[in-house]
Amino acid sequence: MKQVNAEIVAVGTELLLGQIANTNAQWISEKLALHGVNVLFHSVVGDNLQRVHDQFEQAANRSDVIVVTGGLGPTDDDLTREAFQLLSGLTMNEHKLSMDKISAYFEKQKRIMTPNNKKQARVFEDATVLENKVGMAPGMIINRDDKVWVFLPGVPKEMKQLFSDEVLPYIQNLSEENTIIESRMLQFIGIGEAQLEYELKDIIAAQTNPTIAPLAQLEGVAIRLTAKANTKDQAQQLITDTQQRIEGRVGSYLYGINNETIEQRVFQLLKGKNKTVAAAESLTGGMFTDRLIAVEGASSVCPGGIVCYDTKVKEKLLHVPTHITKDIGVISEECADSLATNIRTVLGSSIGISFTGVAGPSCVDNHPVGTVYIGMVDDMGKKQIEKFVFRGDRQSIRKKAVWKGYELLFNFLK
Amino acid sequence: MKQVNAEIVAVGTELLLGQIANTNAQWISEKLALHGVNVLFHSVVGDNLQRVHDQFEQAANRSDVIVVTGGLGPTDDDLTREAFQLLSGLTMNEHKLSMDKISAYFEKQKRIMTPNNKKQARVFEDATVLENKVGMAPGMIINRDDKVWVFLPGVPKEMKQLFSDEVLPYIQNLSEENTIIESRMLQFIGIGEAQLEYELKDIIAAQTNPTIAPLAQLEGVAIRLTAKANTKDQAQQLITDTQQRIEGRVGSYLYGINNETIEQRVFQLLKGKNKTVAAAESLTGGMFTDRLIAVEGASSVCPGGIVCYDTKVKEKLLHVPTHITKDIGVISEECADSLATNIRTVLGSSIGISFTGVAGPSCVDNHPVGTVYIGMVDDMGKKQIEKFVFRGDRQSIRKKAVWKGYELLFNFLK
Repeated sequence: MKQVNAEIVAVGTELLLGQIANTNAQWISEKLALHGVNVLFHSVVGDNLQRVHDQFEQAANRSDVIVVTGGLGPTDDDLTREAFQLLSGLTMNEHKLSMDKISAYFEKQKRIMTPNNKKQARVFEDATVLENKVGMAPGMIINRDDKVWVFLPGVPKEMKQLFSDEVLPYIQNLSEENTIIESRMLQFIGIGEAQLEYELKDIIAAQTNPTIAPLAQLEGVAIRLTAKANTKDQAQQLITDTQQRIEGRVGSYLYGINNETIEQRVFQLLKGKNKTVAAAESLTGGMFTDRLIAVEGASSVCPGGIVCYDTKVKEKLLHVPTHITKDIGVISEECADSLATNIRTVLGSSIGISFTGVAGPSCVDNHPVGTVYIGMVDDMGKKQIEKFVFRGDRQSIRKKAVWKGYELLFNFLK
Repeated sequence: MKQVNAEIVAVGTELLLGQIANTNAQWISEKLALHGVNVLFHSVVGDNLQRVHDQFEQAANRSDVIVVTGGLGPTDDDLTREAFQLLSGLTMNEHKLSMDKISAYFEKQKRIMTPNNKKQARVFEDATVLENKVGMAPGMIINRDDKVWVFLPGVPKEMKQLFSDEVLPYIQNLSEENTIIESRMLQFIGIGEAQLEYELKDIIAAQTNPTIAPLAQLEGVAIRLTAKANTKDQAQQLITDTQQRIEGRVGSYLYGINNETIEQRVFQLLKGKNKTVAAAESLTGGMFTDRLIAVEGASSVCPGGIVCYDTKVKEKLLHVPTHITKDIGVISEECADSLATNIRTVLGSSIGISFTGVAGPSCVDNHPVGTVYIGMVDDMGKKQIEKFVFRGDRQSIRKKAVWKGYELLFNFLK
């Protein structure tokens, strides 16, 4: 296997002014790493002919593959083609298919095409032209002096389409003949990164194909499995075998595959069991319900909910007895129980879930900031009330409470 | 004024693997641009001594200020100091204050300090040591061969503290003696970027101090005013004068300054008028209420709300008459009216607001996806019901409906 070294050059003054982050470089790097290509440098250079040229020259001296993003648009500031021409001496021609597409776009929009739009259709001689399916400027792959140059638009949507459809298959051929790389993410809830690594320590250490990479997420933890094989099916089979070994250890925490969210998983569990859920939300203010209703088809599993931030709403709409609100206090197991029990009957759902606690910044009834009670009750009389103390600011505490609610409900439903 | 050219070098293989985006470079670039410093290059290099050295050498040859982030930690992979030593030949010493802090941290945590942690306390001779108030590794500023080298940790929180507190004042002195740069963001709702630019065209064109930069935001539009003067007060006065001219044209759309959110502004308006609001949310699923309850002190302006996703909940809890739900349909002006009127009485709030519509993916009662009715009713009998058709996927439509709800409520309260 030949080791391929790549670098990514982004062209655009907007990046140097800090108006946007170079997320293109991150996205491309992740894909290249998954396909066994080493990315050794990222660079960003402004819309300046000489500086772009110099950056290209340096790249040509140190990398096998140079991926360039940005600077292919219609304005005078777009100088990527000109800089590469200065370096390579290659000539450019108008690409008929791209030009037709640009003309058709302006006709359809009933707008006059200014001459500078023609710039976008120019491609280098001998370039492999990559059709931009979501925008106007085509991409290009150029082989020159044993280097592969890839030119892509800077708009992330266009760059991603061209990279996935055209560039990845091309680059994959460079690095390893007939090798397919596949990856799968396993999403976990209710287990920390350290514990997950501990439970799988020997498997991770012994495993090379697929590789096993634990990753901390914004919420929860994930494991990325990446396998190489001669066919897609073989690669997927290798991943599935390892997934089964992992599930043997920590399967009870696994909730989803790839981009699946916990609310999608809970939605499927509810739908599969023909159950509905309604939430009585105090400190979480509707966030639990909002996330569930974000899932397509949510109407079949969630009739709605009540945000009972004020004690009067807890009493009036959710019938929490005054001996709880007055004597015991609303930050209590009793209140969480009453809220979960009554939201179920008020909304007519199979399951009731409740959130009551202190989001801060001040403590309530001497309960420290972060104290949260979550209650769950179902139509078979099954009940679970738990107390947590979350750390962080007001918004983190609210988010952690909702995430924990989904964890509890996920386990409640399994 | 001497023009200062800067570049930003990020050290860390995690960036080249695409595990994180180089948001540090974006953040630093934005600050430097505001302070009149040209950033000409960003680069990212992995944890490799020779490559980091080469990158530093190139930076020294082309920039006046080199800001380096990352590679200052305790592990063997952290090579920023070693690479700069290779280039500069400067010696390093243990910095007593930093070492004391590191030792104290481990003592407090009752953990044993492994020897590699000492690495973090090493600083170059003659460096200005920058105290890291949120982490362990100190930053450094080093003047050498007419170049300014700034070394900062890669952890964004630590980098930002050191950059704001120590680096910016230092750099400001380099570029313009006794010149202060101040900026202010004006946040607008209910006006597009194109219209805002059109309304202010002549003011923007004629204005040089402060400069006026319109910026599209995730939600709404902002204008950044950036002024230079000899004192902070003078700069602020220049900004205030221009803000007043802008307000003369488009003041009715201005809702906030700097990072203020629309829900914070609505919270203040409610509190100032001693009013409360409750929402009946169908397609928005609790998102409107959640955003308001995210504001500290929200309990004084929002008792709670009802998520009435299912028609039965609209009928039972919000008393929408069956002639509306059955004959007219729930996606209607009448339903929005009834929901807004009744949420006010059911929750006992001064104002009721309602959201009913089609989030998709399928249309409802022949109403196309994106159709949304928003209603508002107050305790003085004032009423407003509006229909919108939003574009986008399910989640965009839901978010746009909530944002529009805040715009309407903001104008309702003014």
